[in-house]
Amino acid sequence: MALIVQKFGGSSVADAERVFNVAKIVTDTYKKGNDVVVVVSAQGDTTDDLIAKQMEINPEANKRERDMLLASGEQISISLLAMACEKLGVPAISLLGWQAGFQTTSAHTSARIKNVDGQRIRQELDQHKVVVVAGFQGINRHEDLTTLGRGGSDTSAVAIAASLHADLCQIFTDVEGVFTADPRKVKNAIKLKEISYDEMLELATLGAQVLNNRSVEMAKKYGIELEVLSSLTNKPGTIVKEKPKMEKMIISGVAKDCDIARISIKGIPNEPGFAFKVFSKLSAKDINVDIILQSVGTEGTKDIAFTVAADKGQEAVDTLNDNKDALGFEEVTLDKDVAKISIVGAGMESHAGVATKMFEALYNNNVNIQMIATSEIKTSVLIAKKDADRAVSAIHDKFFD
Amino acid sequence: MALIVQKFGGSSVADAERVFNVAKIVTDTYKKGNDVVVVVSAQGDTTDDLIAKQMEINPEANKRERDMLLASGEQISISLLAMACEKLGVPAISLLGWQAGFQTTSAHTSARIKNVDGQRIRQELDQHKVVVVAGFQGINRHEDLTTLGRGGSDTSAVAIAASLHADLCQIFTDVEGVFTADPRKVKNAIKLKEISYDEMLELATLGAQVLNNRSVEMAKKYGIELEVLSSLTNKPGTIVKEKPKMEKMIISGVAKDCDIARISIKGIPNEPGFAFKVFSKLSAKDINVDIILQSVGTEGTKDIAFTVAADKGQEAVDTLNDNKDALGFEEVTLDKDVAKISIVGAGMESHAGVATKMFEALYNNNVNIQMIATSEIKTSVLIAKKDADRAVSAIHDKFFD
Repeated sequence: MALIVQKFGGSSVADAERVFNVAKIVTDTYKKGNDVVVVVSAQGDTTDDLIAKQMEINPEANKRERDMLLASGEQISISLLAMACEKLGVPAISLLGWQAGFQTTSAHTSARIKNVDGQRIRQELDQHKVVVVAGFQGINRHEDLTTLGRGGSDTSAVAIAASLHADLCQIFTDVEGVFTADPRKVKNAIKLKEISYDEMLELATLGAQVLNNRSVEMAKKYGIELEVLSSLTNKPGTIVKEKPKMEKMIISGVAKDCDIARISIKGIPNEPGFAFKVFSKLSAKDINVDIILQSVGTEGTKDIAFTVAADKGQEAVDTLNDNKDALGFEEVTLDKDVAKISIVGAGMESHAGVATKMFEALYNNNVNIQMIATSEIKTSVLIAKKDADRAVSAIHDKFFD
Repeated sequence: MALIVQKFGGSSVADAERVFNVAKIVTDTYKKGNDVVVVVSAQGDTTDDLIAKQMEINPEANKRERDMLLASGEQISISLLAMACEKLGVPAISLLGWQAGFQTTSAHTSARIKNVDGQRIRQELDQHKVVVVAGFQGINRHEDLTTLGRGGSDTSAVAIAASLHADLCQIFTDVEGVFTADPRKVKNAIKLKEISYDEMLELATLGAQVLNNRSVEMAKKYGIELEVLSSLTNKPGTIVKEKPKMEKMIISGVAKDCDIARISIKGIPNEPGFAFKVFSKLSAKDINVDIILQSVGTEGTKDIAFTVAADKGQEAVDTLNDNKDALGFEEVTLDKDVAKISIVGAGMESHAGVATKMFEALYNNNVNIQMIATSEIKTSVLIAKKDADRAVSAIHDKFFD
């Protein structure tokens, strides 16, 4: 007997049939003698429908009212799921974010969880009920509803697991687990049995959008064992934990990120402080910079290139051009036809030549590398977008065949 | 400058255009220097859609979860209305039932308001905001969401008006006010300028479904002046208050109720206690009895006839037949082809012959009277359903032409 937190996304509860599919998983877990807390998102397109209603009325509506509107979505899904569990003969109760004790900051639409007071949940578990909790939402100190922003339900689930000292937090998705590469693109992709928090974080950042980053960070902080698995197949998924069993694999995956743009600044005066000036201007606009490459150009000037999220590309260029005179560069260009390919693996620390093997795979397949960045457990390269899928397959084959 | 509570039903906020129509009324009232609290129901068909979702999952779902599901409806309408007010340049904030301080009993799906703690509303009014409150809902002492049952939003509005000592509570509907008869059926129907609480209560009970009964009772108890008016025309409506100005009218209206059934019990032994036995059996099943007529039959037996709500008719007959031997009657029959026509008016107390005038109108038009019931401010007759509209017109013409 264990205390298990299970999280289901919006597509898993999109209609009555799927609600019952989830209720089946939940009640089966309960019938095995476990205490079960379920976290659900709003049904299927509910959130999009609500946003459409808002846009019709007031696209610039203040964020407090947007949160009030959006939080109604989970209220529908939690009550329906509790009703479905009841129908399957298992007592269940639904709780809104505030009822479940989710205290958050006041940053409407992107609030952060400050604390989860698990008293009410524990009380209902003691009554042998399945507790169905609204993900994505909480309450601030003014007693106003807040939402956690995109991927917030994953974080809700991990926060409850941490608060209740749960034995396991299962995140149900539409994939069977974490793979060594995108299984829709790479035929030989292998499902990992276990992976570390750090590797998972790198993979999430790098475009393998299986788990929300904040949720993995929180799981790492509180030592919550996560399992990523499918709500459609009855198979074990991938366990995310501090020290996974090594499976004699040097890398745990190859990831692709195409939502990226490369910005190049040419003709920079060879003086100190230029990088600081550029990146402080960008961070003031909330533009995060990823890979940075600085090179000495001709005639005593320097070039600098870096990557940003694709949807921030034009804003970054505009910001730089607005400050062109103060910064004193010659030209800035934007290239959106790029992709970042990364290999991630805790084994890289101890094994030499891992990056070399990646470069070799690219060279053999005639893929040109534009930029390179490395960390302890990751090596990333920037290449042309058209080469991305081919590069992922080539690298994956090199390591896993 | 006054404190005004305005209530709008679900059809008044059914789509974006109507939400803006309501926002216009609200913000115009605000711009005249008034403090405004708005109570709204769920949009148009939202409640029906939510019930359909429930029926698909679990028709017998427990009432707590049904309340959780249904209460999401007003959450959508209040946030949209607040956004619309904001769009029209007026600061507004939406509050859920529990945020607005609605404490109710625990009787899910038909909870009663125990108290409205107006602190949060007052705080927002002090910040010069329009306060948009979710009608129909509250919270019980376990911090679970409750709903007030049909017509609950009217009661919510009056309860807020009472709690805040509002100067006026406006109930916006799809009719322009309270008429001397149904204006869709009777051409000469006149809109009343003022009417007393008691007359309004009699009219509401009698099928002129303009205001929810509980809301009028509460308004009477706390002396809240109500105005019934249309959200579509910019005209004064009907004021409901303790002592309306008399408009030289003896009666204030003619009402029709067709949702009624007549039950006749024949061959009752002429012993004491029969009526008590019959009506205690029915009240044990929550069946309310209206007009009662007892007559002496032939051969020392008695007959008794009474009316109940149409949807309770068969259940009442079944209950009586189940107890036929114990009660000792000969036969019970059910007649659904009946209608109750009533005249209501405080003037009846001081004017003789009002009922006679009604009977005369019916006689002149060849309408047969089956039963008669009277109170201080009301006279009702039971007639055949097919004669109902003709009878209302005839009586109305007699009094108002």
